[in-house]
Amino acid sequence: MQHGNDILLSLFVVFVAAQVGGRLARAVRLPGVVGEIVAGCVIGPSLLGWIEPSEPLEVLSEIGVVLLLFAVGLETRIDDMQRVGRSAFLVGVLGVIVPFLLGSLWAHGSGYDWAKSMFIAAAFVATSAGITARVLRELGVLHREESRVILGAAVIDDILAMLLLGIVTALQAGEDVHFGKLTIVLAEAIGFVVVIGLVGTRLARRSAPRLDAHGIDLLPYALALCLGLAFLSTQLGLAAIIGAFLAGMVASETPQRKKLEHDTQPLLALMTPFFFVLTGAKIELAQLASADALLTLALITLIALVSKLVGGGLGALALGRRSALIVGVGMMPRGEVGVVIASLGLAAGVFSPRTYALIVAMSLLTSIVTPPLLALLFRRAPAAS
Amino acid sequence: MQHGNDILLSLFVVFVAAQVGGRLARAVRLPGVVGEIVAGCVIGPSLLGWIEPSEPLEVLSEIGVVLLLFAVGLETRIDDMQRVGRSAFLVGVLGVIVPFLLGSLWAHGSGYDWAKSMFIAAAFVATSAGITARVLRELGVLHREESRVILGAAVIDDILAMLLLGIVTALQAGEDVHFGKLTIVLAEAIGFVVVIGLVGTRLARRSAPRLDAHGIDLLPYALALCLGLAFLSTQLGLAAIIGAFLAGMVASETPQRKKLEHDTQPLLALMTPFFFVLTGAKIELAQLASADALLTLALITLIALVSKLVGGGLGALALGRRSALIVGVGMMPRGEVGVVIASLGLAAGVFSPRTYALIVAMSLLTSIVTPPLLALLFRRAPAAS
Repeated sequence: MQHGNDILLSLFVVFVAAQVGGRLARAVRLPGVVGEIVAGCVIGPSLLGWIEPSEPLEVLSEIGVVLLLFAVGLETRIDDMQRVGRSAFLVGVLGVIVPFLLGSLWAHGSGYDWAKSMFIAAAFVATSAGITARVLRELGVLHREESRVILGAAVIDDILAMLLLGIVTALQAGEDVHFGKLTIVLAEAIGFVVVIGLVGTRLARRSAPRLDAHGIDLLPYALALCLGLAFLSTQLGLAAIIGAFLAGMVASETPQRKKLEHDTQPLLALMTPFFFVLTGAKIELAQLASADALLTLALITLIALVSKLVGGGLGALALGRRSALIVGVGMMPRGEVGVVIASLGLAAGVFSPRTYALIVAMSLLTSIVTPPLLALLFRRAPAAS
Repeated sequence: MQHGNDILLSLFVVFVAAQVGGRLARAVRLPGVVGEIVAGCVIGPSLLGWIEPSEPLEVLSEIGVVLLLFAVGLETRIDDMQRVGRSAFLVGVLGVIVPFLLGSLWAHGSGYDWAKSMFIAAAFVATSAGITARVLRELGVLHREESRVILGAAVIDDILAMLLLGIVTALQAGEDVHFGKLTIVLAEAIGFVVVIGLVGTRLARRSAPRLDAHGIDLLPYALALCLGLAFLSTQLGLAAIIGAFLAGMVASETPQRKKLEHDTQPLLALMTPFFFVLTGAKIELAQLASADALLTLALITLIALVSKLVGGGLGALALGRRSALIVGVGMMPRGEVGVVIASLGLAAGVFSPRTYALIVAMSLLTSIVTPPLLALLFRRAPAAS
């Protein structure tokens, strides 16, 4: 373990930085995740230089985000999704289409070709189910109709964004994109999601009670499923987190759902800081240090906020105008999913470090702006439940 | 994450192999850890070649063993250790001295110089507190006097073995060993253990209730302490697991001790398989495939078993002969600590792959032999409680 000393120090520094950043953020009523990303930026090469992204840290970071989406999946049940029904579906779909269109237009207008523009636009699309759920829970409004629509829509939005990501990744990777390939990519992606989401959950519902009745702890099975589906989804050109999310949904159909939710909390406490801190450590502050860059950041953040507000709000109009406003605002935070897509884009060389820095900063800003707005709107509409 | 596909597959394969190995082992009434090591050997380069030890796997493995020793520390309280008193101390000390002497003699007789011989002997010393505790819990005899003595002695044994490891590591690394250096190494090691073990636990006892009263979750603090002390102990020339173990003991003095014990279970479920599987993957079966090697294995296993039985038994004679026999047998499994020391020795180039393979196989065999023996002895002595 002599060779492991440096990595132990990195682990310690990353973990403590995440705790301090998270606590400071919560002290000023921001989501902890914002503080963790900022802490990563502070201890990363841009400022203090205490940590350097390395292969082991990347792996820990990937395990962290895989577990996070597994946990989000655990809180998502097929039946609940079907129950919130039409409104959630409309909000999810429109909340994807409008930001995707506006994002693509902006990126293309900034000089990227259409394939890359659509990849960038994918980072405008995905609402952070984790941040949204955390905020709703903190406000104590999880039972309200708007909350259920937001959560249902966030799930549909997540799946659509993941599919979109799979598609734009394939589009961007292939030099010549032909319709047959696109159809196969789409069919594989939809097939994977449908088979695991529908057949997998039903299988879990039928077979898991037998294991449970024998007193068998399902955690190792669930973790194996999570790692296995995460790998499988990368084999289909999808992101690892889709598989992890689906694994979570499958696990949520077992009798040990509550226990698994409980058991994943310590795993998230240990592993997700690596993801958020490393995310922040990858921000190149130098890229944002110009009036031009800051103007662009203001512009794309506005595009991200307004497009989601309009798309999400339109989908929820049937609930009344105030509720539609709440739903639209609730869909605004991009958080970790936007950051994941930005990381993928940076790793694949799809866009420049400057665009990466801008997209991560945008995801951050949308996550900072939403919680206070949401709190204000929910407090002003106490009777809507 | 494109580059992470291979590692996701490795994670999945390692995790599933650990589950299958562990289950098969338990099915034939062996400790699960034995099955995990064997599974690693099967999927490693020696046989199937499905995984290859790599830097990220090493880091996960190190985190796994650090968390394991943290968990063992969590189950160890300063006061309980003081209460089991003289017998536990005698068993711990004699259970270290006798195997260390016999192990050193054997290694020196096999041609190693004294510094390397003492390093090798350190692998004969350490009783696996984890395996012992797991076995005693499975037998439902944790409340019995012999069990408390075994656990107390295993803790003292662990600390002595760790100190010994720190000393023999320093001895082995330094070309010319002079008394001053040895004294400093010893003083630093003892100072670290005493300060953290006595002052740290008392500080935790005083200050943690205040945090607890504010409803603050102590898990992130405990994990940060674990990583920090693990790093600090490597800086003092000790193994990372000493710091982790001490962090666990400090955390066990907080009001959230039970919650922390509970929270570490999922962490162990996820991370420790990487340690045991990677341990097994490092065994070079080719090194054991000769009559000579097998004879040597039989000899060192016999030395390991008898030296612990004699040392541990002598220390517990005050409890009566049958109880002394139970205590001696209970101290026999070497398990992960022997394997850790063997890994350190291999990494530092202290001994050959053949000696590594022999020591790991010996640790394995002692862990296989003990549980059935212990069960037999406890069943034949039902009135001794």
